[in-house]
Formats: sequence, C-alpha cells, structure tokens
Amino acid sequence: MTGRTRRSTIGPTPAGGNSKQANGSKQSSAGEKTPSHPSHSNGKVKKEKQVCHVLQESLLSSASGYSNYRGILNWCVVMLVLSNARLFLENLLKYGILVDPVQVVSLFLKDPYSWPAPCLVIGIYLNLLPLWHANCIIVVGTISETTGTFLYLVNLTTLLCFPSATVLTLTSMTPAGGVFALGVYTILFMKLYSYKDVNMWCREIRHTKAHIYYFVFAPTLCYELNFPRSPRIRKSFLLRRLFEMLFFIQLLIGLVQQWIVPTIQNSMKPFQDMDFSRMMERMLKLAVPNHLIWLIFFYWFFHSSMNFVAELMQFGDREFYRDWWNSETVTYFWSNWNIPVHKWCLRHFYKPIMRRGVNKWVAQTAVFLVSAFFHEYLVSVPLKMFRLWAFMGMMSQIPLAWFVGRFLRGNHGNAAVWISLIIGQPVAVLMYVHDYYVIHYMSQS
Amino acid sequence: MTGRTRRSTIGPTPAGGNSKQANGSKQSSAGEKTPSHPSHSNGKVKKEKQVCHVLQESLLSSASGYSNYRGILNWCVVMLVLSNARLFLENLLKYGILVDPVQVVSLFLKDPYSWPAPCLVIGIYLNLLPLWHANCIIVVGTISETTGTFLYLVNLTTLLCFPSATVLTLTSMTPAGGVFALGVYTILFMKLYSYKDVNMWCREIRHTKAHIYYFVFAPTLCYELNFPRSPRIRKSFLLRRLFEMLFFIQLLIGLVQQWIVPTIQNSMKPFQDMDFSRMMERMLKLAVPNHLIWLIFFYWFFHSSMNFVAELMQFGDREFYRDWWNSETVTYFWSNWNIPVHKWCLRHFYKPIMRRGVNKWVAQTAVFLVSAFFHEYLVSVPLKMFRLWAFMGMMSQIPLAWFVGRFLRGNHGNAAVWISLIIGQPVAVLMYVHDYYVIHYMSQS
Repeated sequence: MTGRTRRSTIGPTPAGGNSKQANGSKQSSAGEKTPSHPSHSNGKVKKEKQVCHVLQESLLSSASGYSNYRGILNWCVVMLVLSNARLFLENLLKYGILVDPVQVVSLFLKDPYSWPAPCLVIGIYLNLLPLWHANCIIVVGTISETTGTFLYLVNLTTLLCFPSATVLTLTSMTPAGGVFALGVYTILFMKLYSYKDVNMWCREIRHTKAHIYYFVFAPTLCYELNFPRSPRIRKSFLLRRLFEMLFFIQLLIGLVQQWIVPTIQNSMKPFQDMDFSRMMERMLKLAVPNHLIWLIFFYWFFHSSMNFVAELMQFGDREFYRDWWNSETVTYFWSNWNIPVHKWCLRHFYKPIMRRGVNKWVAQTAVFLVSAFFHEYLVSVPLKMFRLWAFMGMMSQIPLAWFVGRFLRGNHGNAAVWISLIIGQPVAVLMYVHDYYVIHYMSQS
Repeated sequence: MTGRTRRSTIGPTPAGGNSKQANGSKQSSAGEKTPSHPSHSNGKVKKEKQVCHVLQESLLSSASGYSNYRGILNWCVVMLVLSNARLFLENLLKYGILVDPVQVVSLFLKDPYSWPAPCLVIGIYLNLLPLWHANCIIVVGTISETTGTFLYLVNLTTLLCFPSATVLTLTSMTPAGGVFALGVYTILFMKLYSYKDVNMWCREIRHTKAHIYYFVFAPTLCYELNFPRSPRIRKSFLLRRLFEMLFFIQLLIGLVQQWIVPTIQNSMKPFQDMDFSRMMERMLKLAVPNHLIWLIFFYWFFHSSMNFVAELMQFGDREFYRDWWNSETVTYFWSNWNIPVHKWCLRHFYKPIMRRGVNKWVAQTAVFLVSAFFHEYLVSVPLKMFRLWAFMGMMSQIPLAWFVGRFLRGNHGNAAVWISLIIGQPVAVLMYVHDYYVIHYMSQS
C-alpha cells in the first residue's frame, strides 16, 4: 500500500499529480476506517504499524522525475497582488489622496478663453469635404496628372505641417492639447492616403457625403469600398463598452495623479546629480505603474473605445489587436498589438515598396523608420523640444528584434518582449520628463 | 485567406494558439512573395488589395471564444523579478551592506566563556544510552508495569522540562541558542516515544549501540526495526547537497540581516503608536522577505540538509515533503509539507486515539492542539515570554481549514493556502518581536 502511494506521488504528469491528491485523501480515510475491519489479522495490523518507511527519492531531486508545479502560478499571482497592495498603501500613507478630476482640465486648457486644440480639430472636420473632393478630382483626371499629384502632395503636407506649426507657435497650447490635435491630424493623414491609394487602384469613386464621413469616423485606417457591417447594434454590448470607457479613463487619470506624478517628482534630484544607482531605482519604481497604466490604456483604447465606436457604427471588423501578450519575438509584438496601424503600414507602405523589388529587410527597416518618425512627431512637437528619444526608442527595436529572434525561443522570447515593454517605456518617459523639467523649471530658478 | 487567419486566430486551445503564430508568419511571408507569382491575374491582386476587413469579434470579447493567455505567466514572473530587484536596490541604497557573518556568532553566544546551548545538546547525547536502556527495561518487563510506566513518563517529562528549565534560568542563554537546544530535545522526545511504541507493539528489542545511534541521527522520527537502506553513497549527490547547505545558510543569514532586521526596526514606531494602516503596511513589507526566507529555509532544511544526512547514513526513505505547493486545502498543506512530523503524528497520536473510537474531528483537533503546544513551547521558552501567539496561530488553522475546504476549490483554494502562508507568518513574527522589544528596550529607556 505504501508502495502504491509512492508511485502515484512521483507521477510526472499533472494528471498524475491530481489523481495523487485524490488518492492521498482516499487512502487516509481508508486508513482511518481500519479499526472497523475485523477481518484484518492482528499480525497484519502489527506489520503495517511497524513498517512506515520505503526506499524513495525526494520530489525535488531530479531522480524523482516529478514536474508538477501548478501551484507556482498561483504563488506568482498572490505575491504580485500583495506586493502591489503594499505599494498602494505606502503611496497613500506618504502622499494622501492626490486624485483631482478638475485638475485634468488644466492639462488641456491654460487660458479658459482660448481653446486652441479643440479649434484645430473642429477646423479640420469642417474642411473634410473640400479636402476629400480635391482628392477625387485628382483620381477622376479632370486635371493633368502632374497638377493632380502636386495638389495631392500639398494636401498631405498641409495635414502634417499646419497643425504642428500651430502647436509650436501658440503659447496657449498645452502639451496634452497638442498631442490630441496632432493625433487627430495624423489619423486623418493616414486615412486620406489610404483613400487615394484605393481609388487609384480601382478607378472607381464613391464620394457621397455619408460614405466619406463613415470612413472618417470608422475605427480603421484602411479604406475599402464596402466595409463589412455587423447585423445590428447590441445595446448591452454598447453599454458595457461605454461603462468601461468611463471607468478606465477615470482609473487612468487617478493612477497618473496618485502614482506617476509623485514618483517622477522624486526622480528629478537623482537625474540632476546623475546618480546612476538611484536613477536605476527610480526607473524601476516608475516601471510598475507605467506598465499598469499602459496595459489599462491598451484595454481602454483598443478594446473598449474602438469596440464602442464600431458597435455604434455597425462596423464589422473588430480585430483591433491580436494575441500580442503571447508574442515570442519583437516583430510579432509590433505586428499584433496595434492592428489598424499595422494593417495600414502593410497595405500602403510595406507591400507597395516590396512590389518595387526592395529587399525585405530594407522594407522592414523603412517601416520602423516611418513609425519612429511619427512617434517622435507626436511627442516632440507638443512638448516643443526635439530630443529624438522616441525616435531612438523605436529604432532600437530593430537590433532588439534581431537579438531576440536570433538567441531566444519560446518562453524566454516572450519574457524578453515583456521586459523590453516594461523597462523601455519608463526610460523614454523619464528622459523626456527630465529634459522638460530642466528647460521649464531650472531656467526659472 | 483572411477568413482562415481569423479562424485560426480565435482557436480556443493553446495548441491552436501555437499553430496560429506559426501560420501568421507563414502567411505574411507568402504575402511578401506575391509579386513573384506572375500567374496571379491582375484583377485578383486588385480585389485582394481592396478588401482588407472581415466580420469578426475582438479577442477579448467573450463572443470570440479565445482563451490562450500563456504569456501572462511570463508576465507575472517578469513583474515579480523586476519588483523585487527594485526593492533590493532600494534596500542597498538606504542601508548599505548590513551582512556580517561574524555577528551571527553573537546570536548564539552572549558570553564567550559560557556555552549553555551546546552543553545542553552534548549532555543529552552523552546520556542517550542510559535513557534508551531505561526504555528497554520497561518493555522487557524486568520490573513491574506500573513502575515501568512511571519511569517512562519521568523520562519523557524530563526530556521536555529539564532543557526548558535550563533555558529559562540561565541568563547567558540567547534566544537562538535556546531554540536550537529545545529543538534537539523535542526531536529526541519524539524519537524516544516512537521507539517505545514500536517496541511495545512487537515485543522485540534490538538495543545494540549502533542500532540506537543510527535511529537517533537518522532523518526520521518514526522508529522501525529495519529501515530501508540505499545501496551506496552517491558522492556527487552528497557534494551537491553539502554545497547547497553551505550556500543557503549564508543566503538565509544575509537576507535576515539585510532585509528583515531593518524592516522590523522600522516597524516598532507604528506598533507602539497602534497606527493600524502603517502596521498593515509594515506587515506587508515584512511578508515578502519573510516568505522568501521561509521558502529558502524549507529547501535548505527539508531538501538539502535531510538528504545530505540521509545520503551519508544510506537512509533510503527520502520522502521528507510532498507536493504541498499544489495544496488546495489547508489540511493537505499541513499533512504534506513536513512529512517526518506528519508521519509521527499519524502513527503515534492520531491512529492510536482513532483506534480507541474517538471521533475523527476530535482527533484532528487534538493533533493541531499538540502541534500548537510544541510551536508555542519552541518559541515562548527561548524568548522567556508567554504570549500564546504561536499557539493561537496554529489553532486558527482549524477554522481556516474548515473555511477553505467548505468554500474554495481548485486554484482558489491553492491561492488561499498561499495567502495564509504569506500573511500569517509575518503577523506572528511581528507580534513576538514587538512584545520582545517592548519588554527589553522600552523598560530600559
């Protein structure tokens, strides 16, 4: 009987482990019932009592062949929750409650009588139809091709340069307002580019007002003549997404005010003194909340908000992200976490230059270059300082992708992707914040 | 083609997820090769270019049926490692290096000319044979049974009372020395009890010197006439266990000095002021290093040290612990993490009282009571203060076991066991340290 216990104990499969636990309790209850079995000969009971050891290895010895560590996952989760509960409590005790929803407004508005960012955004939406019609003229060919291409390029350049010039010159424009306005213009730039490309391909234009506005507000960057539509608006789905949108945006603002702002303020001194071990400590301290906020932002933007808009517009294709959390290479992550941008890059940039016979690696590098340019554009212009940290952050993905793809496989690759996400972002954030702080606060004192 | 992508994307099994990632890369490379296929009709390419959306749900929507979150385990591990790396760095920056191997000696010795704990331990080992022979006399029956039982009880009581009286009266006895001495005496008490029980069962005595000494030093508490023996001493196994023993004991001492001591010192103020939120924060702060140290201690004692002794003595039964890390009930944990004690309790306490017809629940409670008594005995006597925290900690396992067994299953039960381990211990530790501190340092000032 003891021998059987042993064999099931060291069962190498998880199933073996399960049956083991079940067996264990069964055996002990059987053991408890022993006195009620009068058929047991006295000698047998005595024998059983005397022998209580058996030749066997410890489970953690490699010779045992045991490998069921299911419980470790639960351990990880419990440890993470408890560690962060402590950090949260420590933060509350140290700083009190810093969350202040009204303060958010001041991020977008310096002067309550001057609303530069909303004006910029409303301005472009009012001028949408002329812009789109200019494109149509080019395609239909009522003017010569050279004039058409020239007009088109002017259009696109204006979409990028006009808002950035406005953001750079207006003193009443806050960084947050600038990011918002530039983001809207960049999205329109990509949509217009896609619209023109598709129209050139199929030489067929539908420029009814409704059609154009549908594409402008739909949660995609790639134009198509007939978008797939969902059969109906599911009310409960819509309400759940709306609730998530409202809840997570509050949570994001609260976490930034309560956790990120004090941590960054405490980081300024080590960064001025260039004290490397303390800089490292601050960077790791910032990494956890920054990563949490990024995860919540991902869910808020790519799941809640985009699904909300799509449900409202009965837009059928809800693939706004794929399973990037399982990605084992950096390339897999970048081509799966932001599907609208990835699709646009693939369709309107990567494939066209591949068709012109460009080498695959050159094309991939070019995609990263364009992506790096837009990252830098969306950060540097609103902050009104050009430091290239975001550009370099994106470009450093190329050697990283090569390294991970070359040397790491499976779970190690996945862990490397997570580490680059968790560590990479706070480094870039701290760089910008430090420089912004030095320019705006050190020069005054 | 896009339809196929979608179907494999939402494959609900992990295997589906794997094939998906493989498919994904295959498809993209196939897509890149498109220009080199002249057989593609121009119209087909155009059609493919135009259509780039398909009716589908987001992965995180419940309607997608997707459930592959393999990457989350890696995320947990990465987050845990990074969080603790930061804590480690913060600790180093705050306190510098506190590890001091020489200081450990002072834990065991107050006065270098008085060695009470080693004297106690050596004393009992010198008197082993008379003690054992007294037992034999009882069994063989050269004296009357009443006298025998009386002598035996005197023997056992002495084994518990003599060292505790010594520890309590000697001022040169440090708490660490006291725990060590009392631990040795308790182990001998249990071995002697088991020896007498088995001898009574089989009325056959082997009291050669070698036989008795083998049992006294063997890593088990249950006596048996013929212990299973391993065929030979594996040198490499022995050396690895020895290396682990030396390494982990250093690590344990280092962690206590560097991490536990400063945390406890910082906890004294909140505990004096009875500031509950800060007490909670301190308790959680202590929980992580305390738990790590307990895990390392478990490995050091139950795997490295006991396997080392067993290998040296060619003791065959290496089951010193079972898979408690997967335990889904509190009872499973207690009956699997410390097999020598569990085996002894089952064989010499639980089963005998069960055979007398005692109810199962009463018997289990009795086992916990005895266990709680010994926990308290091993803590209170060396600290020379009687607070019952350890006793209550053990006794609180009974309602906890009932609660977990009644309401929680599977992973939830496992998580509950982990939480009780991670939280329960530091609470008890802080209680004792606080009281010890109040008695020894507050009264002086």
